[in-house]
Amino acid sequence: MRARVVVGVDLGGTNLGTAVITDSKDILAKLTVPTNAHEGPEAVIDAIERSVRRALAEAGADLTDTLAVCVGSPGPLNWQTGIVYHAPNLPGWNDIPLGEKLHDRLAVPCYVDNDANVACYGEYWLGAGQGVSTLCLLTLGTGVGGGLVINGELIRGIDGTAAEIGHMKVMRGGRRCGCGRDGCFEAYASVTGMLRTAAEGMEGGSETLLNTLCHNDTAKLTGKMISEAIDKGDDFAKEVMEETGAWIGIGIANLVNILNPEKIVLCGGMVAAGDILFDAIRQSVDENAFEVPAQRAEIVPAGLGDDSGVIGAAGVALSRYTVDHRAP
Amino acid sequence: MRARVVVGVDLGGTNLGTAVITDSKDILAKLTVPTNAHEGPEAVIDAIERSVRRALAEAGADLTDTLAVCVGSPGPLNWQTGIVYHAPNLPGWNDIPLGEKLHDRLAVPCYVDNDANVACYGEYWLGAGQGVSTLCLLTLGTGVGGGLVINGELIRGIDGTAAEIGHMKVMRGGRRCGCGRDGCFEAYASVTGMLRTAAEGMEGGSETLLNTLCHNDTAKLTGKMISEAIDKGDDFAKEVMEETGAWIGIGIANLVNILNPEKIVLCGGMVAAGDILFDAIRQSVDENAFEVPAQRAEIVPAGLGDDSGVIGAAGVALSRYTVDHRAP
Repeated sequence: MRARVVVGVDLGGTNLGTAVITDSKDILAKLTVPTNAHEGPEAVIDAIERSVRRALAEAGADLTDTLAVCVGSPGPLNWQTGIVYHAPNLPGWNDIPLGEKLHDRLAVPCYVDNDANVACYGEYWLGAGQGVSTLCLLTLGTGVGGGLVINGELIRGIDGTAAEIGHMKVMRGGRRCGCGRDGCFEAYASVTGMLRTAAEGMEGGSETLLNTLCHNDTAKLTGKMISEAIDKGDDFAKEVMEETGAWIGIGIANLVNILNPEKIVLCGGMVAAGDILFDAIRQSVDENAFEVPAQRAEIVPAGLGDDSGVIGAAGVALSRYTVDHRAP
Repeated sequence: MRARVVVGVDLGGTNLGTAVITDSKDILAKLTVPTNAHEGPEAVIDAIERSVRRALAEAGADLTDTLAVCVGSPGPLNWQTGIVYHAPNLPGWNDIPLGEKLHDRLAVPCYVDNDANVACYGEYWLGAGQGVSTLCLLTLGTGVGGGLVINGELIRGIDGTAAEIGHMKVMRGGRRCGCGRDGCFEAYASVTGMLRTAAEGMEGGSETLLNTLCHNDTAKLTGKMISEAIDKGDDFAKEVMEETGAWIGIGIANLVNILNPEKIVLCGGMVAAGDILFDAIRQSVDENAFEVPAQRAEIVPAGLGDDSGVIGAAGVALSRYTVDHRAP
């Protein structure tokens, strides 16, 4: 008997990842192609279709073996109807019925779910969270995204908007956030937040190699410059990274006090900073959360690296297929 | 055939509530007796036993009809072993195996669970949250406690410490909290927090009737004085209440962004403040959370009033009995 498979798709602004995984968790094929987002929604949906068919062929499978497909998509979107309302990095994506359009092409159940939620499920299913029932995923990049698995279930909330961890307020009256509100976690804990922390210090007159690296223009600062300055022994850059870790730890401490999870999985650009960041985060969580849940929560980088999303999408496809086809 | 019943016990520092409820949710008996906490743990456990037997007799039932008993207890405690580690308002309660001691006396399954969690389950089961799958309960009293039901399940976390909503940090570097950390939600959103807000304003020279009511001693301020001053048209007291509502709304907005719940149920002493408080909370949630989940989350007072705990304990007894006796 041929294996039954699910297909996960990670729809990013730049790249489109696709994976074919059996219902016993064997990864049979995985490929990445450019999204070519500038060509518009129909072209991208064509690319998803081609990618799914190609990955299935590479896996030695076809659509008759396929239980379901799931696309992890940027949002906001409706996971129940499969409509993507808007995707900032995908030009022209407004109210696109992605699930339905894919189903028309592939004739198997085609689900759509939030990309960060799907990545969290990936870590739970096959990554750093295997064997764990409750975990939180934080994506620490330009912004801060999140996903929650509680008692083995992906938490989407009643409208599918849950896990907006980046917009938890940690500092009333604090920094203005991209969302228009003030004091959001994301305004401090993202790469963007870290660069603002650096810029504020530099504008306050701090001596640092960063002045040279950015040619005295703090608007040109990058995360890479911070890392480079740290590598060269720059104390200010190290303090900026530690301060950012302290903020990340505050948000995590809130999740730890509220949810008492077993693991916190971190992914995104910030994670590359390594021990200097993780040590600061750990210390901040210990200081800011209650002892028992703080001691419990292991804080680890994503086990699947950049593949959390594509593997998670396949996992969600299997999970949703199973729920939809459960005996009554 | 006689009805099968569960018994809920609400163990408070002052009063001990007991309710007998059928497995089809009919409340057959409900009574309250003094806890007499000063007599020590054994006397209190005797009182629980007597109270359970008396409530069963009033319900026309007995222990042979009883599926399970659950005590909603102050904590910290271990809900799996039934051990109460420590209960601040119950002198001498240190590592008391409450579940086991009750089982020795009653010979039916005797569960122990956190009081705020149990109250949340009560609101989900028979109160303001009926028909809702995801809700948060906040107890706004001397401190801020909480409970979470997500997709119909009480969320306890891996160590049973979840839902410590009061110690979510909303203001880094802010007010010192009773827990020893700074900027906790509880330091602003509790009755104690409201009184600090009032005291700070009065010490800053604000004109208010509260000066007269507390005889110019801000340490003597009470929640009742704030309400009295508001009733008499005192603007400062009204602002204090609205500012407290704004803080409560910030904590709720965080829960709304993280969990996208259908309802937020409020209980505890603050709730009596009524519209002036609820309007300020509502406005703050709308300002501080994303629009879709903010619009979704209904913010309501507890439907069971002071009985959330005792009814919830019975509900948790039934739920835990059902899980423990599920066909394999």
